[in-house]
Amino acid sequence: MSKIVTFGEIMLRLSTERHLRFSQAKTFAASYGGGEFNVAVSLANYGIPVEFVTRLPDNEIGACALKEMRKFNVESKNVIYGGERLGIYYLETGAGTRGSNVIYDRAHSSMSTIQNGSIDWEAVLKDATWFHWSGITPAISQSAADECLIALKVAHKLGITISSDLNYRSKLWQYGKTPDQIMPELLKYSNVILGDIDTAFFMLGKDKVNPNYQNEKSLPALYDQLFKLCPNLKTVATTLRYSVSASHQRIGGILYDGKTIFNADVKEVTPVVDRVGSGDAFMGGLIYGLVNDDTDKQKALNIAVAACCLKHTISGDYNLITLNEIEKLLSGDASGKVSR
Amino acid sequence: MSKIVTFGEIMLRLSTERHLRFSQAKTFAASYGGGEFNVAVSLANYGIPVEFVTRLPDNEIGACALKEMRKFNVESKNVIYGGERLGIYYLETGAGTRGSNVIYDRAHSSMSTIQNGSIDWEAVLKDATWFHWSGITPAISQSAADECLIALKVAHKLGITISSDLNYRSKLWQYGKTPDQIMPELLKYSNVILGDIDTAFFMLGKDKVNPNYQNEKSLPALYDQLFKLCPNLKTVATTLRYSVSASHQRIGGILYDGKTIFNADVKEVTPVVDRVGSGDAFMGGLIYGLVNDDTDKQKALNIAVAACCLKHTISGDYNLITLNEIEKLLSGDASGKVSR
Amino acid sequence: MSKIVTFGEIMLRLSTERHLRFSQAKTFAASYGGGEFNVAVSLANYGIPVEFVTRLPDNEIGACALKEMRKFNVESKNVIYGGERLGIYYLETGAGTRGSNVIYDRAHSSMSTIQNGSIDWEAVLKDATWFHWSGITPAISQSAADECLIALKVAHKLGITISSDLNYRSKLWQYGKTPDQIMPELLKYSNVILGDIDTAFFMLGKDKVNPNYQNEKSLPALYDQLFKLCPNLKTVATTLRYSVSASHQRIGGILYDGKTIFNADVKEVTPVVDRVGSGDAFMGGLIYGLVNDDTDKQKALNIAVAACCLKHTISGDYNLITLNEIEKLLSGDASGKVSR
Amino acid sequence: MSKIVTFGEIMLRLSTERHLRFSQAKTFAASYGGGEFNVAVSLANYGIPVEFVTRLPDNEIGACALKEMRKFNVESKNVIYGGERLGIYYLETGAGTRGSNVIYDRAHSSMSTIQNGSIDWEAVLKDATWFHWSGITPAISQSAADECLIALKVAHKLGITISSDLNYRSKLWQYGKTPDQIMPELLKYSNVILGDIDTAFFMLGKDKVNPNYQNEKSLPALYDQLFKLCPNLKTVATTLRYSVSASHQRIGGILYDGKTIFNADVKEVTPVVDRVGSGDAFMGGLIYGLVNDDTDKQKALNIAVAACCLKHTISGDYNLITLNEIEKLLSGDASGKVSR
Amino acid sequence: MSKIVTFGEIMLRLSTERHLRFSQAKTFAASYGGGEFNVAVSLANYGIPVEFVTRLPDNEIGACALKEMRKFNVESKNVIYGGERLGIYYLETGAGTRGSNVIYDRAHSSMSTIQNGSIDWEAVLKDATWFHWSGITPAISQSAADECLIALKVAHKLGITISSDLNYRSKLWQYGKTPDQIMPELLKYSNVILGDIDTAFFMLGKDKVNPNYQNEKSLPALYDQLFKLCPNLKTVATTLRYSVSASHQRIGGILYDGKTIFNADVKEVTPVVDRVGSGDAFMGGLIYGLVNDDTDKQKALNIAVAACCLKHTISGDYNLITLNEIEKLLSGDASGKVSR
Amino acid sequence: MSKIVTFGEIMLRLSTERHLRFSQAKTFAASYGGGEFNVAVSLANYGIPVEFVTRLPDNEIGACALKEMRKFNVESKNVIYGGERLGIYYLETGAGTRGSNVIYDRAHSSMSTIQNGSIDWEAVLKDATWFHWSGITPAISQSAADECLIALKVAHKLGITISSDLNYRSKLWQYGKTPDQIMPELLKYSNVILGDIDTAFFMLGKDKVNPNYQNEKSLPALYDQLFKLCPNLKTVATTLRYSVSASHQRIGGILYDGKTIFNADVKEVTPVVDRVGSGDAFMGGLIYGLVNDDTDKQKALNIAVAACCLKHTISGDYNLITLNEIEKLLSGDASGKVSR
Repeated sequence: MSKIVTFGEIMLRLSTERHLRFSQAKTFAASYGGGEFNVAVSLANYGIPVEFVTRLPDNEIGACALKEMRKFNVESKNVIYGGERLGIYYLETGAGTRGSNVIYDRAHSSMSTIQNGSIDWEAVLKDATWFHWSGITPAISQSAADECLIALKVAHKLGITISSDLNYRSKLWQYGKTPDQIMPELLKYSNVILGDIDTAFFMLGKDKVNPNYQNEKSLPALYDQLFKLCPNLKTVATTLRYSVSASHQRIGGILYDGKTIFNADVKEVTPVVDRVGSGDAFMGGLIYGLVNDDTDKQKALNIAVAACCLKHTISGDYNLITLNEIEKLLSGDASGKVSR
Repeated sequence: MSKIVTFGEIMLRLSTERHLRFSQAKTFAASYGGGEFNVAVSLANYGIPVEFVTRLPDNEIGACALKEMRKFNVESKNVIYGGERLGIYYLETGAGTRGSNVIYDRAHSSMSTIQNGSIDWEAVLKDATWFHWSGITPAISQSAADECLIALKVAHKLGITISSDLNYRSKLWQYGKTPDQIMPELLKYSNVILGDIDTAFFMLGKDKVNPNYQNEKSLPALYDQLFKLCPNLKTVATTLRYSVSASHQRIGGILYDGKTIFNADVKEVTPVVDRVGSGDAFMGGLIYGLVNDDTDKQKALNIAVAACCLKHTISGDYNLITLNEIEKLLSGDASGKVSR
Repeated sequence: MSKIVTFGEIMLRLSTERHLRFSQAKTFAASYGGGEFNVAVSLANYGIPVEFVTRLPDNEIGACALKEMRKFNVESKNVIYGGERLGIYYLETGAGTRGSNVIYDRAHSSMSTIQNGSIDWEAVLKDATWFHWSGITPAISQSAADECLIALKVAHKLGITISSDLNYRSKLWQYGKTPDQIMPELLKYSNVILGDIDTAFFMLGKDKVNPNYQNEKSLPALYDQLFKLCPNLKTVATTLRYSVSASHQRIGGILYDGKTIFNADVKEVTPVVDRVGSGDAFMGGLIYGLVNDDTDKQKALNIAVAACCLKHTISGDYNLITLNEIEKLLSGDASGKVSR
Repeated sequence: MSKIVTFGEIMLRLSTERHLRFSQAKTFAASYGGGEFNVAVSLANYGIPVEFVTRLPDNEIGACALKEMRKFNVESKNVIYGGERLGIYYLETGAGTRGSNVIYDRAHSSMSTIQNGSIDWEAVLKDATWFHWSGITPAISQSAADECLIALKVAHKLGITISSDLNYRSKLWQYGKTPDQIMPELLKYSNVILGDIDTAFFMLGKDKVNPNYQNEKSLPALYDQLFKLCPNLKTVATTLRYSVSASHQRIGGILYDGKTIFNADVKEVTPVVDRVGSGDAFMGGLIYGLVNDDTDKQKALNIAVAACCLKHTISGDYNLITLNEIEKLLSGDASGKVSR
Repeated sequence: MSKIVTFGEIMLRLSTERHLRFSQAKTFAASYGGGEFNVAVSLANYGIPVEFVTRLPDNEIGACALKEMRKFNVESKNVIYGGERLGIYYLETGAGTRGSNVIYDRAHSSMSTIQNGSIDWEAVLKDATWFHWSGITPAISQSAADECLIALKVAHKLGITISSDLNYRSKLWQYGKTPDQIMPELLKYSNVILGDIDTAFFMLGKDKVNPNYQNEKSLPALYDQLFKLCPNLKTVATTLRYSVSASHQRIGGILYDGKTIFNADVKEVTPVVDRVGSGDAFMGGLIYGLVNDDTDKQKALNIAVAACCLKHTISGDYNLITLNEIEKLLSGDASGKVSR
Repeated sequence: MSKIVTFGEIMLRLSTERHLRFSQAKTFAASYGGGEFNVAVSLANYGIPVEFVTRLPDNEIGACALKEMRKFNVESKNVIYGGERLGIYYLETGAGTRGSNVIYDRAHSSMSTIQNGSIDWEAVLKDATWFHWSGITPAISQSAADECLIALKVAHKLGITISSDLNYRSKLWQYGKTPDQIMPELLKYSNVILGDIDTAFFMLGKDKVNPNYQNEKSLPALYDQLFKLCPNLKTVATTLRYSVSASHQRIGGILYDGKTIFNADVKEVTPVVDRVGSGDAFMGGLIYGLVNDDTDKQKALNIAVAACCLKHTISGDYNLITLNEIEKLLSGDASGKVSR
């Protein structure tokens, strides 16, 4: 079985509980997460050897993040240490017509001040068969963007499969660059891309199209464009998310392998316990599906959608869902009966 | 911008958490609220100078209520002190087919034993342009009802806009008077009234009509009656509430300005985090809308409905919602997407 | 009014809160419950004298269970003491497409190692008019199954009404017997039976039919079979449960008295606060209805369905619902309005 | 074994947790207690049949208090129902140099508005051998004081042992009477009295002496005075409390039987988990000791002191301590070793 | 009564509860504080008009800090907004032999990136009679240090009393300057200084002396040196802290007015609920004492020591203690008796 | 650096919070621990490679224990799976004169039903230099005792250092054997033994001596006896524990190397946050000290005592203390100052 390496930032997540607003909170639930780490936890839960590479501050808060990696069986031996602080994001969980609110406090984090050259990527990726990164890392600082490029070049050289999640965040990209100045160069090494039209257009520098996410019709054109940009691209997929309210989502997915468009049925997701990380759950499911059998794209897509749906029932960033639970849902059993 | 004064009782609210029944609770969440104070907090959140007038006991529990006023930027300089106790209400939050249950323990509160003449209303209202009260205050005691009349007469004399929320509570009115003996005299000073048919008929002494709240058809007749009772009435509005279950409401609104009936679209509200205070949120939105532009009644009504809907997502009595959030919902975005 | 005796096991229930997975929990909510005890609490809430018979360990954890019986006004004077431990069940509460998970840790419990002959059933049942047991007790050990038979014979001899809940649990029956080797002998004393087709087939040893619970059409055949097995059977009923998701159920019911099939309307149950014990709530409502007026089977069935629906809004195993609340729902008011 | 009846008020206790000040609390721990009920729980824990008589409001909060009586095995069959509210006391738990603060909100409680004649004391006390009351009940209202007198006369007539705890509370006695106008008449029926010099002088109307509680030297004179006042007095005892800080107490005791002064060694009590109810724990221990063997006054006093000390380690009003734990401490083992 | 202005940083404080280590915490208690703001809250509690000047980020976390100022009646009208983030400090509360641990995450905070010239100090200080700052602000950044100097010069020019708390923090001063390069210039405007020998030597650039805090003997020499440095110095005081363990402190104080040394008795402080902010409580008490009667230095010192002791019993940074409580302790009553 | 292997049981620990009695608890804090695992965590914290060998049930509760091993960096690759349940222990934390109470519910655990031969000890111990076990494992079942012997023989054959903690628990040894029938055979392989006189006499089958733990004088005789029993014994040590109360301990230690008696100073431990696992902390410190420098027995003993003292300030079974903190305490700094 293949070892997978993911690279990105792990943050302290400070969230209010029971839908409280920030001004009502006397406590914050303290957990840890970040897009690429969340993917790593998904894969570890599915039994795949996985390693996370990041930079942590050498203090007790960084040590908490390290313990979290260990707890969820994500290899941490190539984590590097230094810098001032662990990045933070504050999360106020919405309900109904009130959306959740994220406040990033991740500027000046240890990861964002990573010194290029401090990670020996040849050594890190020696035994790996897959490398995953996302558009969040290049959004936090120039040196983080540069480190992505360094890693991608090594991964490409070693013939490792590269997956990229576009992951546009409007509150990031504060360091003076716009995504279209950075992302195309990074994306072109991709073998697998996850992303929707809006995000793609931000990343690629096109005008932002209608932001209602009901973009299935325009997807083929986007997919073609990505296949042109990325010479090694094999698979591009999109999470279809219809947001009825903060508490009710409908989730589907589309995948294109350069020849065929695959569709997954839309599933009802209600109530939403926690939607943060559900895109990472899709990505984790997609990678698992492709690693397991890259000839069955429909199955990989179905796993991705099921994982994404189930993630909405889990508190915290990670998708603490087993393969058995995904298979049960794939078999059509969404009844949520008690197992006893 | 106008200073608004609201007058009423602020209580300690003791609520069970996570839908527990009273007999299951080992802790009560302790917050503060009351119809007219809730309106004041709404207005303060919208950036309008607002003052709350009440009577508090001179003990540490009263001091907690005072700190709450300060925290939410509600002026408290004319609060008076004395009496025995802060009123309490116990709240057991229902779910699905089980409704919430309120137990009032507000008899003998400092507010209910207010001594008429102890507030210098001329001084209080000198700089005000709006005075708000509700049918709860005259329901708690004769002296509270009398104090309402005193205040209303001063407000009327000073030419201040007066808004009245009918707010009938079947568990109050325990001091020997029925609403129809008290309310008509108080209501006649109103410029703005909020109330539905059932409540109005209780307050005005008519036979109670069918209590199913689907009373749109009969509203025009009620509105005409109120316009006859209140010589200065300019606006009367009603929250339309269709209660699917304790966890699912549908909220609309109607407003009449003496000439035209305005309607607001019905919005889905699910799940209900906390519906207590949602009528006050409607009132707060209505006042804000009218203060902001009293020529655009449709806008004022829309704001009131949106504020009411959003309140259901907030724990506690107050509508901790910003103008931005109301405008987002008014623009048609009920998707509850994550802002990040 | 009749004294009712129920017999079975009370366990410590350790549940995660707020839909957390086991691996996320730093605390477990500690409550107590078990099918037959849950029925007893329902009946006590309805004002019926009720006694629970079980075996508890003679330690502080057993003493907690005893205090729980007292708190809810369930007579405990014939509880016997001994054995090693109070049985435990762990509960992870699901949401949406993720079902709840129960892990039993009740082997070697004091109840499962009950010594036959240690309860004087003649004395226990002397003043009783009803005896209730379920298929859980014979599923935990041979001696528990034997004790059921002893009790049933005494109850039968004394002419007491006997109600039986089939209650099949796939994770029990670990002691070497299959249900069909044990249950028919026990069931034949029944005057009232609660159970669905799947459960019945397990219990009676037939092939398991399609497990989708949409089994109304086949029920009459099952009912006839039960009437043949049980010479004294007067009433057999089934909870109809349509599981949309872990958070959304639809609940109806069917009852047969040997002559007529009675149906109760299906009710929406959403959200589900806690579905464990909802079958026991149905049973408790059914017994109450029959004790109160055994000529009105439709009313008894309606009460059972309403009690079952309302139970889903209550945390913990017991149905802490009053007769008033059941009657309100039966009258058609499912609106969940605030009472104030 | 004798049945003991205690009479008084049970309140809802709302306490801040972890030494928080009232203004910091977002939750209150909700428990129940009151001097005479606390004594009842002590006795129930020691295995003595005990009944509590009070008046509760007929609402869900009153029902919680009733469940509490049942949970702790205190008979409640003669509780009467009516009135407006369950009394409340707020508790802010101090530490070190900051003392705890109690705010009473018990005026107008169901107990304080008890209607004389509504309890059939002949029936209540028919099977009792002991009646306990305290100086708190006559401090809350005239009718409560009158009901004490009624009960005491019946108890005296029936030849039941009467114990009285002086229990002076400076924040009560608000209804227009001073203790010396009420207490001497009530106290004269006493067979056993618990009280210290300061309290006694308040109750008897003498000038208040030096309030520093180091009053051992003057106790014999007080005792003589009580023996003169109370023709049937057999035992008078005093808790000696040396308050080093809110977190550190030293507890001893003195007892006089009309002939001999008995002393108990002073014990260190640190830390103090909760000192409310520790006087009631002393009383409960004293009654138990005298009921068990009224010839061994030294033993009774020792039990009272040990019970009082151990109570300080228990959260809440009640002394949830077993006889085994008292005996272990009496045997000289204060080491607090782990039992495993 | 004089208006007092304090200037500094308010941070989000994230603390573990119940002595948990960081790696054990699933929640952080979220409160707010900072040395100079803590002093402001003390003064507001004593009834003195007080204003806090700082710079907050214009986001919801900054808004929480603003609400905190309002809640505790600290004027916030001259707060300025901008920058990236609210500073954070993590606190792990020790016990016994394990000390508390503070991790600062306040670099790049809005306050540390304050732009000089953005506060109109003439307007801010126009009505003030006292200005307070501490050595923490110049420790966080050059612009914060510069802003202190700007403010001090204006305050000096306006003839306002200036108090300075040396407040050395070894984990700050990370921006390239050492305290002795910055502090002497700032300190020389002081009328009142609080500080101990170790801190003073750090600040003034002398060799650090023996760090055991038992430095009473050397204090007079330090005091003389400060009087030489600061031409307007009237009062210098020192908290004497003998740290038995993290849970047990002994607190005394010394004050020198240029002529006489005043001493306050050492008080036992055990247990320590929260010692963070106890130095600020001393400062708040000292300012109050001097504002109230600057001729009675002994009284001012006694108040400072009592306030400091009492603060150790309060959770959070602020000294939520009333004048009554201070006076009770000053009168010699440290018994911590229950008030009821 | 040496790899250390420890062998034993890890349990779910269910503890009441804030000194609550079992009957007061609505939640249990859920953590994990067990003597030999606690030693492993100590060693991992000190940076030593360490592995824990046990048997876990193959269910989600067992998976939680596994995640705990990973989180704290204890190797788990040789854990075996099977059996019915994870053992449990309930803990009620005492205070002052009330001791903590442990209720074991570990019978029939996966570890206690371990099948001999299912662990390949040759493979497990191949790279190890130290093997640690304790007297708890042979106390739970015959097969667990037998597995100890198997492991000890392999360890001995491979020349690995063997440490043994006597660890007598009076509530175990329920399977029909007494310690003296089992322990001498197991102990004789020991190179290092930790134990006190009382425990030793239980284990060795002598009459139990005076249980007051003040047994320093008799220790040399015991030590001689152990040296006779164990031909390879090099070090025997004893924790000296003087229990003032459940909240106040005094901890010292003695060590004998066959020639010299070493003593460590007694340290005050107050308050006690959690004393469970403090003996394991002593053991962990002792092993660390000996592994680090086995020629400096005094240092090793000092580390063991310091680790034991510091453990009392940590919630849960494990000693989450760093080497830095131990060294700070060893250097004489017990002041618990804030680090900031």
